[in-house]
Amino acid sequence: MKSFDSSLISSHTDHLIDLAIAEDIGSGDITTNHLPDPLARGRGKIVAKEPAVVAGLEIAKRTFEKFEPDVDFSSNFRDGDSVSAGDVIAEINCSMRTLLTGERIALNFLQRLSGIATNVRSYVEELKDEKIRLVDTRKTVPGWRVLEKYAVRVGGAHNHRMGLYDGVLIKDNHIEAFGGIKNAIDHIRKQVSHLIKIEIETSDLNEVNQALNAGADVIMLDNMGLEEIRAAVDLINGQAIVEVSGRVCKTDLKRLAKTGVDIVSVGALIHAAVFVDISMRITPSS
Amino acid sequence: MKSFDSSLISSHTDHLIDLAIAEDIGSGDITTNHLPDPLARGRGKIVAKEPAVVAGLEIAKRTFEKFEPDVDFSSNFRDGDSVSAGDVIAEINCSMRTLLTGERIALNFLQRLSGIATNVRSYVEELKDEKIRLVDTRKTVPGWRVLEKYAVRVGGAHNHRMGLYDGVLIKDNHIEAFGGIKNAIDHIRKQVSHLIKIEIETSDLNEVNQALNAGADVIMLDNMGLEEIRAAVDLINGQAIVEVSGRVCKTDLKRLAKTGVDIVSVGALIHAAVFVDISMRITPSS
Amino acid sequence: MKSFDSSLISSHTDHLIDLAIAEDIGSGDITTNHLPDPLARGRGKIVAKEPAVVAGLEIAKRTFEKFEPDVDFSSNFRDGDSVSAGDVIAEINCSMRTLLTGERIALNFLQRLSGIATNVRSYVEELKDEKIRLVDTRKTVPGWRVLEKYAVRVGGAHNHRMGLYDGVLIKDNHIEAFGGIKNAIDHIRKQVSHLIKIEIETSDLNEVNQALNAGADVIMLDNMGLEEIRAAVDLINGQAIVEVSGRVCKTDLKRLAKTGVDIVSVGALIHAAVFVDISMRITPSS
Amino acid sequence: MKSFDSSLISSHTDHLIDLAIAEDIGSGDITTNHLPDPLARGRGKIVAKEPAVVAGLEIAKRTFEKFEPDVDFSSNFRDGDSVSAGDVIAEINCSMRTLLTGERIALNFLQRLSGIATNVRSYVEELKDEKIRLVDTRKTVPGWRVLEKYAVRVGGAHNHRMGLYDGVLIKDNHIEAFGGIKNAIDHIRKQVSHLIKIEIETSDLNEVNQALNAGADVIMLDNMGLEEIRAAVDLINGQAIVEVSGRVCKTDLKRLAKTGVDIVSVGALIHAAVFVDISMRITPSS
Amino acid sequence: MKSFDSSLISSHTDHLIDLAIAEDIGSGDITTNHLPDPLARGRGKIVAKEPAVVAGLEIAKRTFEKFEPDVDFSSNFRDGDSVSAGDVIAEINCSMRTLLTGERIALNFLQRLSGIATNVRSYVEELKDEKIRLVDTRKTVPGWRVLEKYAVRVGGAHNHRMGLYDGVLIKDNHIEAFGGIKNAIDHIRKQVSHLIKIEIETSDLNEVNQALNAGADVIMLDNMGLEEIRAAVDLINGQAIVEVSGRVCKTDLKRLAKTGVDIVSVGALIHAAVFVDISMRITPSS
Amino acid sequence: MKSFDSSLISSHTDHLIDLAIAEDIGSGDITTNHLPDPLARGRGKIVAKEPAVVAGLEIAKRTFEKFEPDVDFSSNFRDGDSVSAGDVIAEINCSMRTLLTGERIALNFLQRLSGIATNVRSYVEELKDEKIRLVDTRKTVPGWRVLEKYAVRVGGAHNHRMGLYDGVLIKDNHIEAFGGIKNAIDHIRKQVSHLIKIEIETSDLNEVNQALNAGADVIMLDNMGLEEIRAAVDLINGQAIVEVSGRVCKTDLKRLAKTGVDIVSVGALIHAAVFVDISMRITPSS
Repeated sequence: MKSFDSSLISSHTDHLIDLAIAEDIGSGDITTNHLPDPLARGRGKIVAKEPAVVAGLEIAKRTFEKFEPDVDFSSNFRDGDSVSAGDVIAEINCSMRTLLTGERIALNFLQRLSGIATNVRSYVEELKDEKIRLVDTRKTVPGWRVLEKYAVRVGGAHNHRMGLYDGVLIKDNHIEAFGGIKNAIDHIRKQVSHLIKIEIETSDLNEVNQALNAGADVIMLDNMGLEEIRAAVDLINGQAIVEVSGRVCKTDLKRLAKTGVDIVSVGALIHAAVFVDISMRITPSS
Repeated sequence: MKSFDSSLISSHTDHLIDLAIAEDIGSGDITTNHLPDPLARGRGKIVAKEPAVVAGLEIAKRTFEKFEPDVDFSSNFRDGDSVSAGDVIAEINCSMRTLLTGERIALNFLQRLSGIATNVRSYVEELKDEKIRLVDTRKTVPGWRVLEKYAVRVGGAHNHRMGLYDGVLIKDNHIEAFGGIKNAIDHIRKQVSHLIKIEIETSDLNEVNQALNAGADVIMLDNMGLEEIRAAVDLINGQAIVEVSGRVCKTDLKRLAKTGVDIVSVGALIHAAVFVDISMRITPSS
Repeated sequence: MKSFDSSLISSHTDHLIDLAIAEDIGSGDITTNHLPDPLARGRGKIVAKEPAVVAGLEIAKRTFEKFEPDVDFSSNFRDGDSVSAGDVIAEINCSMRTLLTGERIALNFLQRLSGIATNVRSYVEELKDEKIRLVDTRKTVPGWRVLEKYAVRVGGAHNHRMGLYDGVLIKDNHIEAFGGIKNAIDHIRKQVSHLIKIEIETSDLNEVNQALNAGADVIMLDNMGLEEIRAAVDLINGQAIVEVSGRVCKTDLKRLAKTGVDIVSVGALIHAAVFVDISMRITPSS
Repeated sequence: MKSFDSSLISSHTDHLIDLAIAEDIGSGDITTNHLPDPLARGRGKIVAKEPAVVAGLEIAKRTFEKFEPDVDFSSNFRDGDSVSAGDVIAEINCSMRTLLTGERIALNFLQRLSGIATNVRSYVEELKDEKIRLVDTRKTVPGWRVLEKYAVRVGGAHNHRMGLYDGVLIKDNHIEAFGGIKNAIDHIRKQVSHLIKIEIETSDLNEVNQALNAGADVIMLDNMGLEEIRAAVDLINGQAIVEVSGRVCKTDLKRLAKTGVDIVSVGALIHAAVFVDISMRITPSS
Repeated sequence: MKSFDSSLISSHTDHLIDLAIAEDIGSGDITTNHLPDPLARGRGKIVAKEPAVVAGLEIAKRTFEKFEPDVDFSSNFRDGDSVSAGDVIAEINCSMRTLLTGERIALNFLQRLSGIATNVRSYVEELKDEKIRLVDTRKTVPGWRVLEKYAVRVGGAHNHRMGLYDGVLIKDNHIEAFGGIKNAIDHIRKQVSHLIKIEIETSDLNEVNQALNAGADVIMLDNMGLEEIRAAVDLINGQAIVEVSGRVCKTDLKRLAKTGVDIVSVGALIHAAVFVDISMRITPSS
Repeated sequence: MKSFDSSLISSHTDHLIDLAIAEDIGSGDITTNHLPDPLARGRGKIVAKEPAVVAGLEIAKRTFEKFEPDVDFSSNFRDGDSVSAGDVIAEINCSMRTLLTGERIALNFLQRLSGIATNVRSYVEELKDEKIRLVDTRKTVPGWRVLEKYAVRVGGAHNHRMGLYDGVLIKDNHIEAFGGIKNAIDHIRKQVSHLIKIEIETSDLNEVNQALNAGADVIMLDNMGLEEIRAAVDLINGQAIVEVSGRVCKTDLKRLAKTGVDIVSVGALIHAAVFVDISMRITPSS
């Protein structure tokens, strides 16, 4: 499992932390601002309350640094590690103020991102020993695309395109507007960068055949049954990458993998993930 | 059910739509940008694929307006209305470009906000005929606080404080730092605005008693059992507002309500909500 | 007097410093940019030219740090301290460039904030030995709300609500729109967070009585005479917090305090404050 | 009196209105948001409560437009007009919501800007029939430079430089750093744009003489007495523009003007101005 | 030639116009602000002073709209059209103020973008009747990437990747870090989205062979001579897309095309383009 | 040659670096993000590939610091120094990641700014031993005004005004709108700061004469021939600064200088500059 991708802490991510601070603290933390000793030091322990795959350590650290640049944030884990209930995910030494004011924001990031990574990992484990690649979709919480897709990678799956700018996916509505599958692919191929692959959505074998003849790089089989999927894989026969899409249950994944498709995309990796239970224990430093 | 709170479309919310557009479209929608007829018109129907409580209509509309200011967006529903699978939630008439490029962003907003409202409504229905007030917490997705708390109201529940700035909640860690419950309340009362109530977290009857004597406006009973809650309600006897907090299951709510507490706060209203299934059908206009 | 509230140096305050730098320096300081020795060091002494209550030291420091992160800024005073004409409020050691370019911006912050704190202190001294709480209003310079209300606290008075979001104040226009005092309070109580108190404006004893019966948390007596105020205090008799508002002269404060009202709000604390005279002496370092 | 300079409503000014809305409304106007009829219409009359010179009408209008783009805002006055107590400065027809929520922000802009214009006008009237030009300084409230200097022009006086970027003013500290008056002027003249005049601060006749010989475009007489000023004017004899600076009382202005100096700069035009009393009366529309 | 891609007028582009206005106008246009009649109307004609390919009409229009939302901007041309010296590219009817203040900013956009399109067109004409695709590089003016690459398309060439996010290009330094060509391709293929093609830089036939065996989608021949290029094309034999890179002169293009390579990338399309001469004639409207 | 003007690294410049990073890296560098050893160190050498005048070292350094705050960036040159092909302009020691990801952005800044400085220097050398001052114009790439004008100074020429805010230049269109040269100058003189000089454009000796009589500070001779310029210089005879403008070839400069005009403005200093060839060599650190 590779270490956290520090390039995430880009201006975009930083901006989200700023938004979070603004929305939570606004004109000031009117409870903590009145602490009798504003310089009192404390120690916070971030503790898993249920089994989880950790994601977001670097962002949690960055959140506390926004309040206190030289905060001491340490962890025995890295993003992608599994933790059990009771494990101390990270320890923070800094002022009590920073701990009390920053706690909820840091936890919200960790709980959301670890929630996704944990959810993804459960799908990934279904598919171990299979060659199929599990990918996410663009069904994400607005403003969180880069972070949520990062958590998918942390969980062990892969990303589909990041957005409308880095991959062509021609859907049924596009096909109609372009006047057929061949026209659509030809027209777009002429325009887009030679580094971009073209994927096209198909709903039956006839369309799969057209896509193949038009030279699609990737063919998506949308909402097809297992039989039809197998037939499509046979028809395509390695001449294009094959992706299956639609409402896929976790329990169907293994059978799907056996059909020989290359890729399965599952929106629920992100959009059905919920917070994992993580909390913080604060104690004064002696 | 009151109409959508248009003040939500503030600079903050607008900013989130801009972020969503930036992250999804970036340097351009390389599929739709190459449509043969960039002026072709179309009609989009946003359709519920499962029963839901609608939330976010105004934001969905605003999203399309970002691409085409005079888009025609109409709906027979208002935020807070229940819809069934198959119901057309809204209809949009504009260019095919705007429909194809804006679809996913608008749906992501609608699916997230309706997901929360639908989740909240299921809790609210558990509590109908009860006087207890159901409220949310600060466990929210960073950057989404105002919107998620709006969806809670749409679903029929209430908001706890928006952030650290508009309510005092003295937790166990604060109490220790202030040197006891009485000191904490006295000290803070002297500093904060006379319009702000002071809530304090208690973990047993002894602390409840101290809180009461110190003149707390709201007393939170944290992780107490039903028996202890009843005893606390008796002890407090109307001299302070009583809030119950902790991991509360939906099925426990009714019994909790019978204890006479005024308020129950449930983080899962927001943090355990998932997308509801809503999609869009696009057809060319004749 | 507590130390400067460092949480003020939030992104909001930082943003105001950036605005100040942009508006003053723009495309460059065309006098100082041409110094023969751009590395020459200097010492600046910020000196009070008249008696004042100091406010804004942290912001002045932060302003210089924007130009030179490791500037040496020291002071024998803290926000809230009284200084006499001639006192050296702070000393700055850094490059001559930073001193010459940053001087006016830092002084503008200090002179404005100390101006408010000094003005507030003169009111506070009128009221020493009285229990009444002196508070500000929302009559502030746009963009400066958080800072100006900070200076009020530094001067020794208290804040009313920060804005429209953290307190309910029902004015005569609201009452009419809601259909009476009781309707207004009932309706709003049902909607707002249980942590928010409800204040209502009254103009005579009849309205005070209605407010009392409707369960207002705070009753504002607007533009009443001393006799009427005393009668209102008697009528309310501790069942609500009593606030007096209107054009209050400093010389009336003491008499007002004797009536037994809890709070007096004075917009002039902020909006009638002017710069105190503070300047900077710069000398080259040997 | 010329009409309001609409170029003021630039992105900078717009930004200040946005800041003001953010700081006052934040997560929502919790009083007005609960109006029973969110569509109810109303009329607001902005009324002078004391004699004033109006400034900021366009900004007040723009503030209401932020809430309701097609608000009907009309006025019989223009910036720079004098009004008496009781005059209706402007009338606004729009929703009650917009009136109630926007009132304080719009008034804060109007009261601050009109406060400056009114203060300036009182100085200008002292100087009518005199040729001397009255100008402001850089002692302004951070973030408000452009607006405050606009109000100075509205009041009838002139602006000194806007900031450090559009004029050279060599002060005593600069002179020392450059190694004398002549060196400073020569060095800077070689560097700055040929469109920028060079002003230099002098404290006695000897320095005036050096400045003159070095070819200064503008010579500032800093803190000199009337006698010395007259001698300096004689010495300079039209070869440079002469500016007087220092703590100048309004009552000294006339005598100063008689000395023949061209310009007098008075920081108090801006930094000693306070809010003028302006309020709003709201009534429901039938 | 297709119409202007209106999606360019995104928040990014808009932001660049705002920057341009801020840097040129700052605290105000001190010449035009003093026009005796601020409402006077005028007509501006934007005229080509030399032959050019037009690019940027929509941005020029948007620039004037920033000053006057209902400006009347019309043109007989579309981006990509060729114009001759003397042709009126666009006509603008609005206030004299808007014309005088906005002129230079609008022209700067038009001159820069048309300069690129004109430069690109001259390369494209060299290559007409050839199948080779001419593409740009990432050598662009910071902040202008999206606009400059748009102008390349307007001129008739294509874009290479937009940035580091939408295409993989493995250069010699990467190869070393990954431990060889095969390792690099294998490792990256496993990680990136299945919609992204992988391009690798090669410097001789041996590396071309390795790239081919490792399954590269695109093979870049870096700084090779014509002979070596022909040999590489033979070796690759349609199994990968072939791109030639390096300092390519316009006069070499035709010979290069005959080698059978698919793509030639030329940084000079953008980085060696200069302003074309375009000016504006302003006349008052009767 | 003075050292780099560090005040350039203002929020404005910083903002341009952020834009450049956003446009090039977006959601992530998908090649470099997958380096097997994300901590591997490397050394980059920035090398001139052709003779050049260096400009932008501080910005290049700042660009790498955005990725890695403690990057080790060193150089034997300063902005304004001439380098030969092969010279190592700077050396950077940091992680391979930072080198590979930041390379193109840093080079784009350096190549653009050095391109301008190099172009300017070639003009400056034409004029050595002449007293005439060579200045730029407002024909700049939008968003780059401050940087491009900085590069002009680095190259050895001077700046005309930065924008519309720091100098008055009355052009033919203004003259018509003001009703003649005298009216224009009188009217504007009454309004603008006494520190701003007034320049007026003239097209023949008659207009020169009017400008002189109206007291213009600077007279621009627009598109006049050498004979007419000489006559204008005689006529003006030192009573105003004389500037020549229009399409001036580098080879005409010397003759122009001999006419005795004070200033020649050449837009091509900036708008006809192209990238100089600078590249980076990266090697792993042992």
